[in-house]
Amino acid sequence: MQNYGKTFQLWRKAAGSAWNEYTNHAFVEKLADGTLPKENFVNYLIQDYVFLIHFSRAWALAITKAETLEEMRLCATTVNALVNEEISLHVKLCAEEGIEETDLFNATEAMPNLAYTRYVLDAGHSGDFLDLIAALAPCVLGYGEIGYTISKKEHSSAYSDWISTYSSEEYQGVCVDVGKLIDQAVLIRLGENPAQNPRWHRLTNRFLMATRLEAGFWQMGLDN
Amino acid sequence: MQNYGKTFQLWRKAAGSAWNEYTNHAFVEKLADGTLPKENFVNYLIQDYVFLIHFSRAWALAITKAETLEEMRLCATTVNALVNEEISLHVKLCAEEGIEETDLFNATEAMPNLAYTRYVLDAGHSGDFLDLIAALAPCVLGYGEIGYTISKKEHSSAYSDWISTYSSEEYQGVCVDVGKLIDQAVLIRLGENPAQNPRWHRLTNRFLMATRLEAGFWQMGLDN
Amino acid sequence: MQNYGKTFQLWRKAAGSAWNEYTNHAFVEKLADGTLPKENFVNYLIQDYVFLIHFSRAWALAITKAETLEEMRLCATTVNALVNEEISLHVKLCAEEGIEETDLFNATEAMPNLAYTRYVLDAGHSGDFLDLIAALAPCVLGYGEIGYTISKKEHSSAYSDWISTYSSEEYQGVCVDVGKLIDQAVLIRLGENPAQNPRWHRLTNRFLMATRLEAGFWQMGLDN
Amino acid sequence: MQNYGKTFQLWRKAAGSAWNEYTNHAFVEKLADGTLPKENFVNYLIQDYVFLIHFSRAWALAITKAETLEEMRLCATTVNALVNEEISLHVKLCAEEGIEETDLFNATEAMPNLAYTRYVLDAGHSGDFLDLIAALAPCVLGYGEIGYTISKKEHSSAYSDWISTYSSEEYQGVCVDVGKLIDQAVLIRLGENPAQNPRWHRLTNRFLMATRLEAGFWQMGLDN
Repeated sequence: MQNYGKTFQLWRKAAGSAWNEYTNHAFVEKLADGTLPKENFVNYLIQDYVFLIHFSRAWALAITKAETLEEMRLCATTVNALVNEEISLHVKLCAEEGIEETDLFNATEAMPNLAYTRYVLDAGHSGDFLDLIAALAPCVLGYGEIGYTISKKEHSSAYSDWISTYSSEEYQGVCVDVGKLIDQAVLIRLGENPAQNPRWHRLTNRFLMATRLEAGFWQMGLDN
Repeated sequence: MQNYGKTFQLWRKAAGSAWNEYTNHAFVEKLADGTLPKENFVNYLIQDYVFLIHFSRAWALAITKAETLEEMRLCATTVNALVNEEISLHVKLCAEEGIEETDLFNATEAMPNLAYTRYVLDAGHSGDFLDLIAALAPCVLGYGEIGYTISKKEHSSAYSDWISTYSSEEYQGVCVDVGKLIDQAVLIRLGENPAQNPRWHRLTNRFLMATRLEAGFWQMGLDN
Repeated sequence: MQNYGKTFQLWRKAAGSAWNEYTNHAFVEKLADGTLPKENFVNYLIQDYVFLIHFSRAWALAITKAETLEEMRLCATTVNALVNEEISLHVKLCAEEGIEETDLFNATEAMPNLAYTRYVLDAGHSGDFLDLIAALAPCVLGYGEIGYTISKKEHSSAYSDWISTYSSEEYQGVCVDVGKLIDQAVLIRLGENPAQNPRWHRLTNRFLMATRLEAGFWQMGLDN
Repeated sequence: MQNYGKTFQLWRKAAGSAWNEYTNHAFVEKLADGTLPKENFVNYLIQDYVFLIHFSRAWALAITKAETLEEMRLCATTVNALVNEEISLHVKLCAEEGIEETDLFNATEAMPNLAYTRYVLDAGHSGDFLDLIAALAPCVLGYGEIGYTISKKEHSSAYSDWISTYSSEEYQGVCVDVGKLIDQAVLIRLGENPAQNPRWHRLTNRFLMATRLEAGFWQMGLDN
């Protein structure tokens, strides 16, 4: 497995079976073996486009809550990567299906989608940088883990654009950088033994809730 | 029907069938005729308690976004009424079932609950006072309409505490005051012909989405 | 001296000479011995009215960032007390000078006034509940200390309304409650030895900056 | 004069003499004729570095409040330009004086600096995208106007790095783009006749206050 940092390992473990239910969800398996119906994939892409818009807003919120120059810079870079790069996969794949970007931007959000992004944004507004980053982590790092895992085993070529995006060296590099950002953010706020800090339990709960909301997002992709 | 102001009439109408699906939801009918299983009612109360906590946070956010003294005062009064009064109905009814308030405060939110309150909070954070108030309105005024309507027709006494809370002169007075607040807030920001204002469509969409999320909340109450 | 809690003692001490420069500022001495020109006092009251409006907004923001029911309730009570009670001293005294409340609400803020309240609000938006409360503390508790100290020594009756407001049992009770709130908020987030927590230095800096901004506010009152 | 859009012309005019007091402040004249003492310039750069950090946070906040894809993208680009480019002028010039970037990041803010950035951030938190952008405009566009004006007349080479940064084609292009963003943002929210909209007065006041705070910032640069 890829190394996305010390804190991620702790949060991932604390999330228990929920992490497995997210990263090995039936939607993921069907993406890998190519049995996911195209229609479900397209509906997922449309929802995921709107998700990325609000997810970018959450990373932008993180810029306003950063306490070091490094935190500001990495969050600014991430917003840019999301708004100008990751989103272009969705735009390209949807364009192939005849769906334009303004339609994507104005698509009606399904409830599991809305629940997830607004939860992350509120984690930021109600807490500090760490509360926000704990809610942002499962998506960024989970997609990295899923993309990497699929790419290392036999898989169908049906959704290879998606798979290669998240297993790419570039995206894996983002995950490594975000993992380091988290470790450093935890160190300066919680100290050397973060799991001993009174806030720890609350942070693992943030990570857990966002993990469950990710599983809910996959389920929405199947049910659509 | 009760008169909760001019803007409410316009927004309610613009919400179309969604308003009816919310205010005449099967959950509401079962509350009125007493056929709602007690277990569903208690689960609803627990979720609604957590809802009110986050809904109070949204009214508190409105204080920070108010532009007149009257807006500040009415929002401050509403937060107090929610945190110290409306919530006590839930605490009392749950206590009769052996559920303590700290358990209520720490209950895990179901996704439709979480989706609703975080959507309202984000309406406030992303927009101005009007964006927030348009998302707050369906709950406050819809409960007033539901409580009043049930109280005026034949109904079971099974859930009379709930019915009398929302049909009470006190709660109806809150609805009238909130309706006036909305009309005034609209007047000073959108002018005499608000439906002509470029922002109008966006505001009716806020009201519509919150209305749909209310229907989703009732459905969660039935499915539980 | 009054006992406003353990954390206040630590923050007050960490603020060093800045605390003394605030609580024993020339403006305060002139308030006590009655040599403060009436015009300066009235200008101070006008600015302080606007200050209280934005300070109420900051306490409302604290409601949105609270993590326990007790935190929510005390903050909601404080907002109400500010908006509906403390402010009435200003309204009454200004009315005696022929200044109406809408004029107060719309008065142009002097820069030291604006700097202070927006700093506090941003402390809340950029950090968590503790960051906000550390920036709110110097005003609430400092006024309590100043009012109490003046009331215990010989003083002029020129500004006795002001002095009795802040030395009153009621206001002193607010300070004691806020002090307990802070101690409890610190305990659940930083643990038993808060000064050992990596965040401690940042929090004392918040308290220190707000203390300096209080001294700047008094100076503005003299310079007006 | 450069064309930074229609709305800018209206806001600039509504700001009256305050605009002139900002753009032709003694600090600006001394920058142009080279009589500004080096020490004042360095102190200004240090404060301006911290200003840019918080100004970047305000542009990041704008991303969270954008309502169109174009708004999101331009704001994201601006944050990046600020955090990774404009700031490098300050870093470079301060490095020549032996001041490191971490010292810049941790410099204590003077009150006029703090007042300004926190006012802008609060404009965003209390209002919508337009409220924020009206408070952001005087800095971005005023620096463009100042840089351009100096570059077109005879001027000393003492501060040519500064002058060429803001008169550069690149920075002037940013001003043109931001001017278009503002015009479009106004159009979709206030319609074809924005000065007729009830919110107009409030927006011009935002622009005016930020303009005054800019003048206060220059004054701080002289007084240091």
